[in-house]
Amino acid sequence: MSVHSRRHLISIEDLDRAGIERILDRAQGFAEVSGREIKKVPALRGRTIVNLFYEASTRTSSSFELAAKRLSADVVSIRAAGSSVDKGESLKDTVQTLSAYDPAAIVIRSPHAGAAQLVAGWTPASVINAGDGKHEHPTQALLDVFTLRRRLGGLDGASIWIVGDVLHSRVARSGILAFKRMGAQVTVCGPPTLIPRGIEALGCTSTASIEGLHEADVVYVLRMQHERMRECFVPSLREYATRYQVSAARLRPGQLLMHPGPVNRGVELSSDAIDSPQALIGEQVKAGVAVRMAVLYELLAGAPALAAVA
Amino acid sequence: MSVHSRRHLISIEDLDRAGIERILDRAQGFAEVSGREIKKVPALRGRTIVNLFYEASTRTSSSFELAAKRLSADVVSIRAAGSSVDKGESLKDTVQTLSAYDPAAIVIRSPHAGAAQLVAGWTPASVINAGDGKHEHPTQALLDVFTLRRRLGGLDGASIWIVGDVLHSRVARSGILAFKRMGAQVTVCGPPTLIPRGIEALGCTSTASIEGLHEADVVYVLRMQHERMRECFVPSLREYATRYQVSAARLRPGQLLMHPGPVNRGVELSSDAIDSPQALIGEQVKAGVAVRMAVLYELLAGAPALAAVA
Amino acid sequence: MSVHSRRHLISIEDLDRAGIERILDRAQGFAEVSGREIKKVPALRGRTIVNLFYEASTRTSSSFELAAKRLSADVVSIRAAGSSVDKGESLKDTVQTLSAYDPAAIVIRSPHAGAAQLVAGWTPASVINAGDGKHEHPTQALLDVFTLRRRLGGLDGASIWIVGDVLHSRVARSGILAFKRMGAQVTVCGPPTLIPRGIEALGCTSTASIEGLHEADVVYVLRMQHERMRECFVPSLREYATRYQVSAARLRPGQLLMHPGPVNRGVELSSDAIDSPQALIGEQVKAGVAVRMAVLYELLAGAPALAAVA
Repeated sequence: MSVHSRRHLISIEDLDRAGIERILDRAQGFAEVSGREIKKVPALRGRTIVNLFYEASTRTSSSFELAAKRLSADVVSIRAAGSSVDKGESLKDTVQTLSAYDPAAIVIRSPHAGAAQLVAGWTPASVINAGDGKHEHPTQALLDVFTLRRRLGGLDGASIWIVGDVLHSRVARSGILAFKRMGAQVTVCGPPTLIPRGIEALGCTSTASIEGLHEADVVYVLRMQHERMRECFVPSLREYATRYQVSAARLRPGQLLMHPGPVNRGVELSSDAIDSPQALIGEQVKAGVAVRMAVLYELLAGAPALAAVA
Repeated sequence: MSVHSRRHLISIEDLDRAGIERILDRAQGFAEVSGREIKKVPALRGRTIVNLFYEASTRTSSSFELAAKRLSADVVSIRAAGSSVDKGESLKDTVQTLSAYDPAAIVIRSPHAGAAQLVAGWTPASVINAGDGKHEHPTQALLDVFTLRRRLGGLDGASIWIVGDVLHSRVARSGILAFKRMGAQVTVCGPPTLIPRGIEALGCTSTASIEGLHEADVVYVLRMQHERMRECFVPSLREYATRYQVSAARLRPGQLLMHPGPVNRGVELSSDAIDSPQALIGEQVKAGVAVRMAVLYELLAGAPALAAVA
Repeated sequence: MSVHSRRHLISIEDLDRAGIERILDRAQGFAEVSGREIKKVPALRGRTIVNLFYEASTRTSSSFELAAKRLSADVVSIRAAGSSVDKGESLKDTVQTLSAYDPAAIVIRSPHAGAAQLVAGWTPASVINAGDGKHEHPTQALLDVFTLRRRLGGLDGASIWIVGDVLHSRVARSGILAFKRMGAQVTVCGPPTLIPRGIEALGCTSTASIEGLHEADVVYVLRMQHERMRECFVPSLREYATRYQVSAARLRPGQLLMHPGPVNRGVELSSDAIDSPQALIGEQVKAGVAVRMAVLYELLAGAPALAAVA
């Protein structure tokens, strides 16, 4: 990783394979910390992390918060509701305000694609993209790769199917980029209205038919948002479920099942699939804390400090 | 307490008298810590406590949060508003997600009776019921017993009247069970529409008349919620207040007055009663932090660690 | 400062010039701490600070939160939304409840003038006014003085113009008092409907004409709230902007520009003014943490402890 790409994590495109592996190796060490009774290291003691969330989120925001606390940082969490954001302050002004606290990092979730990149231009802090519109969600992709690497040893040559609403999914976009970087073959599968034109340019193949799903080593199912029905992308959630829902019956033995959460039970996944031993959903969440600790550490702590923690 | 009953606190029924007394004795020590300038012990340093609140709450959520912080734990607070809960994620999925953080305990407040018991089946963490619908609110009962034990020495033979909307009150249900366990006589008093049929099975007596109130050693007044009027349980708050409001004039000297808060001034309690020296409302809140520290400690820290803190 | 005035910070009127200077000197030391990598001192370890905010706020609430955390205190933040406040509990009862936690300080933001003074009568904790209706916002004034003292050396003889909606501004009121105490000349400028009658009693002059603005050393622009238009104080924001907006063109070289935030870009300030090197807005926010650390320290830590930190 260059000095430049090291300061921020905006997109998986900022990371080459060696950069991803370095974060995953570090995350491995932090996963061990999170398994101890005392889940804390002093790496970022006395440093300030700002979590700036313009969208509702349980898992991403609490995962970042916990990652920062387990590194002993002080965390300031700002949510759109109940903040100056409601008073119509521009993102730029909010970021400049928060930057005056001299935070080591700003973690930003925004409904607008490109928001994290803009923020990086407005602050001397390191910026971590925690999801920007339909664009990217790089720490999700990193935790997904981390989870798979633990299970499969590596991703080289693995076949990963991403099933569902690819069009609106930052998770899909970051996932395709990261899985490809790590040597996997990626297929996206969903209703033609929900597969973006030209997605193959990212190096994946696409299909509207779920018939070939048995060839996948990994089935990665996306969240199907209720609002897509209102917007007429799919005729009904029921029809969507009939055609694309992944159930235990649709999985072959040995396939791994992933989902970024939160799950719509009975829509994109059946309950028997969610609760099957093939599902890695809990492992993904657990990986999230370790991977976010690793990202914060990589961006904020220098190489010398590394030896002390590892 | 058995190993099993030790892992969770769902209901006062999980605790025998010795179990309650053990928590109260421990709380006594923590009350002393909360009275010091440095209100902190390292008992749960580096451990994670999740507060999962599906209902608005100031005092219970902040009391648990402070209890955890004074034990040096890291706290993650999740509220229904602004979280995945809004995206319709099921309680089960939310709990499984949060469990991936390997929390030592999940503190759950839910509008649904039985929620805490369900949660205990879905997580390896210790579960503490912070109020589940109309069912139970065991830490409230424990702090009430703690407060009374300090004032009266013990509850054996004491007469406790619980006045108001018993039907909708988890505080009443947990209170009756705990007061009985500790040897008190309990009478519930309120409009017949707000006294559940068969309440006597819990070992208390019931009456619609507040005339006999002078015989009580302790008058425990419940919150009268405005919405009950809309639901036609009472004709009007004014009429309710006329018949059942506890005022300074209704109290005889020496009686103790309690209320779980928040108070509706001028409805179930008059201002002169709230502000009288007979009212223990502030002591109850103060006891809340110490008792919740004790519950967290009992569930999460082993007996050996005990000696170090006590 | 007398023992009495030391316990609370309700109004700038509580402070004489020596008291202000003492806080600023202390803040100078804490600004140095906030510039370090480890932005933390153990001064208030194990003590509890309650932030009680009845109005939306990003910067003031996060600034106080961070100030308390950098002093190693435990912070409990209560916001009106999602709290008992929604259940209609009176301010008095809420304060008495929170006081049972034995907090070292309660920081209160309220839409009602006089709220902080009332709170001080209901709690043994130190009370810090973080804004009470149109009355005062003393820590804002202190951070403004701190910022100016750093730039100008001192305020004696400086000319400060406060421009905009003075009528509804607690910032203006506290600012006038503090700037005067420190020896500055203050002029308030705005539409006659937004200048309170008799404001000159505070020792300032007033004008409806912005023509004389070039004589100011410091131009302090107030937030123009959208709702004032609905309330007919100004015909339209556009007309307001035409007459009173401070743009880069309106500033003469060497003048300093301040604003309490959040800014309405294009209303009271033009973008070129906000982003000009004359603007101290970021410095004000940065000063906020240091000044609030100093206020907490002055109120809560004794003179002996002082030497240890300084």
